[in-house]
Amino acid sequence: MTDVSANNAATYVVGVDYGTLSGRALVVRVQDGVEVGTAVHPYAHAVIERTLPGDDKQLPPDWALQHPGDWIDVLKTAVPAAVKNAGIDPNDVIGIATDFTACTVLPTTADGTPLSELHPDRPHAWPKLWKHHAAQGQADRINALAHERGEPWINRYGGKISSEWEFAKGLQVLEEDPEIYAETQRWIEAADWIIWQLAGVETRNQCTAGYKGIFQDGAWPTREYLAALNPNFADFVEEKIKHPLAALGDRAGSLTESAAEWTGLPAGIAVAVGNVDAHVTAPAAQSIAPGQMVAIMGTSTCHVMNGATLAEVPGMCGVVDGGIVAGLYGYEAGQSGVGDIFGWFVDTQLPPSYHQAAAEKNQDPHEYLSELAAEQAVGASGLIALDWHNGNRSILVDHELSGVLVGATLATKPEDIYRALVEATAFGTRTIIDAFEASGVPVDELVAAGGLLKNKFLMQIYADVANRPISVIGSDQGPALGSAIHAAVAAGAYEDVPAAANAMGRVERAVYRPDPARAKAYEALYVEYRTLHDYFGSNGLLHRLRRIRNEAHR
Amino acid sequence: MTDVSANNAATYVVGVDYGTLSGRALVVRVQDGVEVGTAVHPYAHAVIERTLPGDDKQLPPDWALQHPGDWIDVLKTAVPAAVKNAGIDPNDVIGIATDFTACTVLPTTADGTPLSELHPDRPHAWPKLWKHHAAQGQADRINALAHERGEPWINRYGGKISSEWEFAKGLQVLEEDPEIYAETQRWIEAADWIIWQLAGVETRNQCTAGYKGIFQDGAWPTREYLAALNPNFADFVEEKIKHPLAALGDRAGSLTESAAEWTGLPAGIAVAVGNVDAHVTAPAAQSIAPGQMVAIMGTSTCHVMNGATLAEVPGMCGVVDGGIVAGLYGYEAGQSGVGDIFGWFVDTQLPPSYHQAAAEKNQDPHEYLSELAAEQAVGASGLIALDWHNGNRSILVDHELSGVLVGATLATKPEDIYRALVEATAFGTRTIIDAFEASGVPVDELVAAGGLLKNKFLMQIYADVANRPISVIGSDQGPALGSAIHAAVAAGAYEDVPAAANAMGRVERAVYRPDPARAKAYEALYVEYRTLHDYFGSNGLLHRLRRIRNEAHR
Repeated sequence: MTDVSANNAATYVVGVDYGTLSGRALVVRVQDGVEVGTAVHPYAHAVIERTLPGDDKQLPPDWALQHPGDWIDVLKTAVPAAVKNAGIDPNDVIGIATDFTACTVLPTTADGTPLSELHPDRPHAWPKLWKHHAAQGQADRINALAHERGEPWINRYGGKISSEWEFAKGLQVLEEDPEIYAETQRWIEAADWIIWQLAGVETRNQCTAGYKGIFQDGAWPTREYLAALNPNFADFVEEKIKHPLAALGDRAGSLTESAAEWTGLPAGIAVAVGNVDAHVTAPAAQSIAPGQMVAIMGTSTCHVMNGATLAEVPGMCGVVDGGIVAGLYGYEAGQSGVGDIFGWFVDTQLPPSYHQAAAEKNQDPHEYLSELAAEQAVGASGLIALDWHNGNRSILVDHELSGVLVGATLATKPEDIYRALVEATAFGTRTIIDAFEASGVPVDELVAAGGLLKNKFLMQIYADVANRPISVIGSDQGPALGSAIHAAVAAGAYEDVPAAANAMGRVERAVYRPDPARAKAYEALYVEYRTLHDYFGSNGLLHRLRRIRNEAHR
Repeated sequence: MTDVSANNAATYVVGVDYGTLSGRALVVRVQDGVEVGTAVHPYAHAVIERTLPGDDKQLPPDWALQHPGDWIDVLKTAVPAAVKNAGIDPNDVIGIATDFTACTVLPTTADGTPLSELHPDRPHAWPKLWKHHAAQGQADRINALAHERGEPWINRYGGKISSEWEFAKGLQVLEEDPEIYAETQRWIEAADWIIWQLAGVETRNQCTAGYKGIFQDGAWPTREYLAALNPNFADFVEEKIKHPLAALGDRAGSLTESAAEWTGLPAGIAVAVGNVDAHVTAPAAQSIAPGQMVAIMGTSTCHVMNGATLAEVPGMCGVVDGGIVAGLYGYEAGQSGVGDIFGWFVDTQLPPSYHQAAAEKNQDPHEYLSELAAEQAVGASGLIALDWHNGNRSILVDHELSGVLVGATLATKPEDIYRALVEATAFGTRTIIDAFEASGVPVDELVAAGGLLKNKFLMQIYADVANRPISVIGSDQGPALGSAIHAAVAAGAYEDVPAAANAMGRVERAVYRPDPARAKAYEALYVEYRTLHDYFGSNGLLHRLRRIRNEAHR
């Protein structure tokens, strides 16, 4: 990638980003964050949704599992390939760090052996991927009981624990396969499990423990609470989860001989504690000061932001002390459908003439639609949409909502709907910003990362709707760069994450600035969006349609 | 068409149906209504929307005019062609009748010469087609003043006079081209003007006078009311409209020599008074008894039904004594977008793979989508739509409303949306039925006519949603057959329209019957439709979006 031959004294770190379908390794120069080599390894088993490997029994609906061997394969293939691609001497690598999807969680023995290796025919022995949604019943009970008992932690999560998180998934194992539950000695995030494989010791990081593991104010949920959920769940924390927590950027340990063999890196180099893909991106974008909201915009959007004070913002995913960097309160919010919605529209609702016109201009349909839509004045289509096609994470925390399109006429064109969908997601972001500010947590700046960055039309709409400047991360590999920054800190090259971010992160400030006239015009449309948001978010109509739908499919 | 050579004694009538883009002539055997020949003539000038013929000055937006010469050309070409196609002797034709779009209205001299012949460069001299929508400002004032003064007739029209009707269009002429207004000696429906050309005498029919001309309880709006609208409008009725009214099926006069020359029909045969395309269809479908609602389903849907009593049903288009047949109260309601909405969806929102799959099955995309959608259980898509893409005629009488689609997810497929749009129009019909019944006017049966008849999937949904049997007209040319029935009455072949309808009309009763389980499932969805209907119909949000849209286009 970059010619580094001139700098023979350089040292390097490796960041590994574990996504939903593949893992990416990135080799980064410690002194300035220059990315010198990268490689991707797609998981052989991808997402296990239908049948277990080597088995043809159908998994129930809403299940999503992964294969731990796929994660190890990333270490064995992508890491050496990235080092080779960089053209550097592996002996110049001083540290490695990882980030992972979360909550992706698995049951292991006391030595970290995944139970799926011992019981490959038992679905509950396998790691549950973040998007395993079959524990909704457990999540509902967790929430109802927490509110009933007035558990202090529930409002740190916008009033709802997700079915995706550690406790709902753990309770599902207990209730559906008590033998596997009994055999589970550690119930551990994949983010921490992969570090165990690299460093040979179990560690637990503050980020996943806080956001996915209900660790708040120095404690997990009480034994009494857990027993009230299910008597056999009483010792869940004590037996399977409890462990000292490490701060992000801490050194988990040193690379073991076997991990050195997998990766081709020197044994004994620093291994940082685990981290999460979204959160690790903030330092990569040099945006860890309070008020800098980093939006990782892709198929969905995750918002992470530090605040100077602790506040309970309605509808956020969580607030965690040191959840992004030590010493600050890390806030997380999210939109469960963003790029996915645009993709759905282009795949299922775009007529042949548009595909053809895009092809003739050598454009992707998204580019073509964006170009057409960009010519319109604000509000010119008369359309407003609600961006709930995949539910609403923040601020309603309601996965049973669905999308709405209002204002169509016989003159409505595809680019009108496309623009309305883009605007809907921008209004969704604005709604989150407003919720933070209404709770006393200021949002001064949006910092964009992720795949949607490349759509300038979209970014300008976000700037106009949010009425705030949008800065842009200076890397296509934000999470992997963020991991590399944590590796450098764990290796002692920098005193702390902010110092490393300052040297190694990259951002271009205020690339997009709101246009005052458009921002004003969007204020009027946003009022209408919020009218629809509040109506459909509270009146139960979308829930009833979903119930009718589910009954019709029975 | 049909071999009639065996019956040498047969006599015939000709019905001429004047549509928006063409006129159709149909030759019908008097004794039994058998259709023996037909021909269509497309208007050379179609709809005049951009520039006047022989002129390149742009017309303002929302204008829609027609050329009277095109209507005469139908008499000159389609009528002889239909007679030729029938293979009959023209001397066996005993009468002719017509039906027309309404309100299509023009200014003429005292002898019926269209002012467009005298002033072809003056836009207001030309006939205004029913869908000329540039008189909304005038309509708004007509309505406001009527309510302010408590005019008794306003509630016969669901509380609103349309911008499409005689008074709004006439007031527009006065206020925008007073010279043309002053020169206008007769302001006459095309439905009546064409009869003047055939019979050489001016007549006015009860149907257009009632539904489009505000004739109620034996009178037009008063001079005082008109003067309050505009002092120069005071004598509008007295000078330009007033004329004795004729009942439908009455003989207007005899075919003139010149009209005989145009048509090739014998001079002196009976010419019936004018009529309207929708209303004339009811006798063609043998459905003129109270409670038989005839729905002419095409790009839009018009509902006509007789009632035994006079009631003011909210949101209907009008109720007119003898408006469909003498002796009964004729009710009219309508849905302003039906087939147009499905066409818009197929044209602008259907992806290439669906077009391709339909082509491979040798199907029209509508057939293909209907087949896919028909497999679904009621409510299985989780979608509900509001069918207001072209505004709402009944029961909200609000052309500034627009379409809504609720419940979309990333799994929503084109056939789901298509079905939701079909269901929305069925719910729209159900809403009209419920309004009639709530006002004490029973609706026992739906009788379908028009182009959408051929979609069996759609018809079954209407039966299930309306929870009533649906009968089907036995002719593809319902309006022309209806005109022929009136021609036979005018010629004295039958005593009255019911007798002629009984002999010459055709209907198949209860072709579609509601399925009890599906009808029950639709009750639940209809509740949600009405929730959305009442919310968006009253909260002003769609009006605000439209205003924002209009401002953005300025």
